[in-house]
Amino acid sequence: MSIRCLAFDGDDTLWHNETHFHLTQAALGDLLRRHVPDADVERHLAEMEMRNLSMYGYGVKSFTLSMLETAIELTQGRIPSSDLEVILGWGKRMLRVPTELLDGVRSALLAVNGRYSLLLITKGDLFDQESKLARSGLAELFSGVEILSEKNVDSYRSVLTRRGIRPEEFVMVGNSLRSDIAPVVALGARAVHIPYHVTWSHEQVAEESLPRKGWWRLGSISELEPLLESIDEPMADRRT
Amino acid sequence: MSIRCLAFDGDDTLWHNETHFHLTQAALGDLLRRHVPDADVERHLAEMEMRNLSMYGYGVKSFTLSMLETAIELTQGRIPSSDLEVILGWGKRMLRVPTELLDGVRSALLAVNGRYSLLLITKGDLFDQESKLARSGLAELFSGVEILSEKNVDSYRSVLTRRGIRPEEFVMVGNSLRSDIAPVVALGARAVHIPYHVTWSHEQVAEESLPRKGWWRLGSISELEPLLESIDEPMADRRT
Repeated sequence: MSIRCLAFDGDDTLWHNETHFHLTQAALGDLLRRHVPDADVERHLAEMEMRNLSMYGYGVKSFTLSMLETAIELTQGRIPSSDLEVILGWGKRMLRVPTELLDGVRSALLAVNGRYSLLLITKGDLFDQESKLARSGLAELFSGVEILSEKNVDSYRSVLTRRGIRPEEFVMVGNSLRSDIAPVVALGARAVHIPYHVTWSHEQVAEESLPRKGWWRLGSISELEPLLESIDEPMADRRT
Repeated sequence: MSIRCLAFDGDDTLWHNETHFHLTQAALGDLLRRHVPDADVERHLAEMEMRNLSMYGYGVKSFTLSMLETAIELTQGRIPSSDLEVILGWGKRMLRVPTELLDGVRSALLAVNGRYSLLLITKGDLFDQESKLARSGLAELFSGVEILSEKNVDSYRSVLTRRGIRPEEFVMVGNSLRSDIAPVVALGARAVHIPYHVTWSHEQVAEESLPRKGWWRLGSISELEPLLESIDEPMADRRT
């Protein structure tokens, strides 16, 4: 079946994201170990984020609130509020950081633009994602943008239905097996996995749990166009 | 022109919202005046929210982060982190509070459902708004939901374009002159203003700045159906 719509994840697929979380997390570790030298800050923060996920959802604001709560809890309320002000500042810095594209992104998008209709499908905080897209300089390449609170089979299905796209015509490109690949393949659509060098623990799934067909893995987005060439089956009337 | 699409704001139009902010704000005032008796907490918080708006956007998480920053700033870092933990808890409580419908909302929606296609157009935090809608029990009445990071002429125009609705066929119902009425009337569509008993200062605009035509004011949503009856001009072929 011919590919009509090619959709991209944003964070860590088109632009760097997880790196900023990792660096901030490391800084939180350094800060809190000054008060509680033996604390396992990373584990505590990861647990806090999971505990708060159903209330806060994803994104930098949620992360900042969970960092603050972790800091207070781990120090049993002994952390001075001037240190908490520092943490608030880290959150703001993350929200303002320039959108830094991954290598080869712009040329890869230009190479497939026109041939397919391009969608951006990201997850997380609406305001932050819109702001990142605006600063990316890529907005005009996309025929549509979907910012979802969660990426799962239901949310992908409703995007396709709303836009009148059949699963067979849809290919999703992203770095997360859990959010970009597994639900898309489960829908009967196809997906291309381009791993990023760090993955948030929450986004990890055992690869064995995925079907073996319906998705491909690439080392870099610059390999995308040749792959699509090879898997795209032009419609009969275009073969002549 | 015949009305085809009737859109509703959510916060303070369908369900109570600002009241929760007001109560929490009052509690913050009480808490901070224990440390800084003469502080003008309300003014300080309002300024902080405006300063942070371009970074945080709207919603409870943004409000919580601004409360924390206000608390630290007003007390010059003297507030103990146990008090900041209390503020974090207020934010969580706001996110979990049941969605409480305004009087007459359900029957008003049922009265117009079927006759018009109903849309929900809210602004704010994606995750929180989806969660409120789910808890409202109203979700199945809407043929579509739009959660915008800002409500202005451009964002309304793109909703109408995306959905193939002409401004003449569109009526927006909401409590905010700034977000629900002014931009809609400016687009050439019509709007119905149903004031809520409290309005966030940021949402206030001088009524004189609005055109005199193209919008109506009601005291309650139960007056909506008769108003629409009176302003709706059925298409010629339905007059026969």
